[in-house]
Amino acid sequence: MESFKRIPAHIGIIPDGNRRWAEQNGFQKKDGYQHGIWPGFELYKIMIQYGIKEATFYGFTKDNNKREMKQREAFTKACVEAVKLLEDRDANLLIIGNTDSKAFPPELYKYANKRVHFGRGLININFLVNYDWEWDLNSLINNKRLASYDIPRIDLIIRWGGRRRLSGFLPAQSVYADFYIIDDYWPSYNERHFLEAMRWYQNCDVTLGG
Amino acid sequence: MESFKRIPAHIGIIPDGNRRWAEQNGFQKKDGYQHGIWPGFELYKIMIQYGIKEATFYGFTKDNNKREMKQREAFTKACVEAVKLLEDRDANLLIIGNTDSKAFPPELYKYANKRVHFGRGLININFLVNYDWEWDLNSLINNKRLASYDIPRIDLIIRWGGRRRLSGFLPAQSVYADFYIIDDYWPSYNERHFLEAMRWYQNCDVTLGG
Repeated sequence: MESFKRIPAHIGIIPDGNRRWAEQNGFQKKDGYQHGIWPGFELYKIMIQYGIKEATFYGFTKDNNKREMKQREAFTKACVEAVKLLEDRDANLLIIGNTDSKAFPPELYKYANKRVHFGRGLININFLVNYDWEWDLNSLINNKRLASYDIPRIDLIIRWGGRRRLSGFLPAQSVYADFYIIDDYWPSYNERHFLEAMRWYQNCDVTLGG
Repeated sequence: MESFKRIPAHIGIIPDGNRRWAEQNGFQKKDGYQHGIWPGFELYKIMIQYGIKEATFYGFTKDNNKREMKQREAFTKACVEAVKLLEDRDANLLIIGNTDSKAFPPELYKYANKRVHFGRGLININFLVNYDWEWDLNSLINNKRLASYDIPRIDLIIRWGGRRRLSGFLPAQSVYADFYIIDDYWPSYNERHFLEAMRWYQNCDVTLGG
């Protein structure tokens, strides 16, 4: 194991590039999502190893529901399967997403918008499922707090798939986060990606504007 | 002039690295801000040349007020001077910031939170002065709209000074923005920076999650 002086308290994960990976590897676009489950658990393991206390994974968003139905079904199914697999692990799970919409998978109602505890609870895992940044912010109007109020500030965001943008990922929690971009597509996850991001993070000073 | 197929409608400018530039060049840290005014006008000119219709400049934030008094005075003065120089140009200026705080420069009250028109109004320039992302979002609670509601979605954010983060820059408008990072410090601005960012932007596809 490498030794790092600075350990981010909370990492944001944007696992992009599933469809591009599928096309590159001779699959249908929709099949990419299924191949994105295993990498999530590899990352989960290495984050626990390195003492990361909290991670937020971008599942799918209201915007993603504009995609064709086959893809929508595939990414929704992948999110449900990921959660079922997590039930046997050691994590405290919080699912944040708009459950008033039909796009929210009914299988996950029982975990929505409250934290549940699996096994030894070694890490807080937040999972954005049918998340919508406008719904999150507009909750300030209606409920005087963010819909994602239980998710704290993010220190480091790692995005796979080469794009350099947030795509609506937790706008309030991301204001001070350092971004690390990995060009490889998410289903090509390798622990070297995580280690590269951690090495880069060692040299980001945290000033919070001061 | 280069020719670009994709012209971002709205560019966000994070002019970071003024203090690091000053130290590197044998000045006191506070003196960096003064040297950041000229680059802003160079950028203003080239943006008009290339048909950019709107740009938002990060002036200073509530967080920046944690810095020592000499620096605070220097960056506040630089913002006021920049606005005075802009009065003689061709821009529609909107200053967004918290005017209820003592840190807001009284010289700029007359331009705060409403758009004013200078000359031929060739570009919309938004300037964040004593801006605070929490103040902006909390306006949803109190006024049912963002304090920055008049600033539209940003397509491209260019940050100088090498850091890869938003530092609280317009969280709601930045959700879909592509980030381009320039390692040089802001007072070392060169038009080649703008052109590099524009060239890179040609290959960012806009999906808005679809």
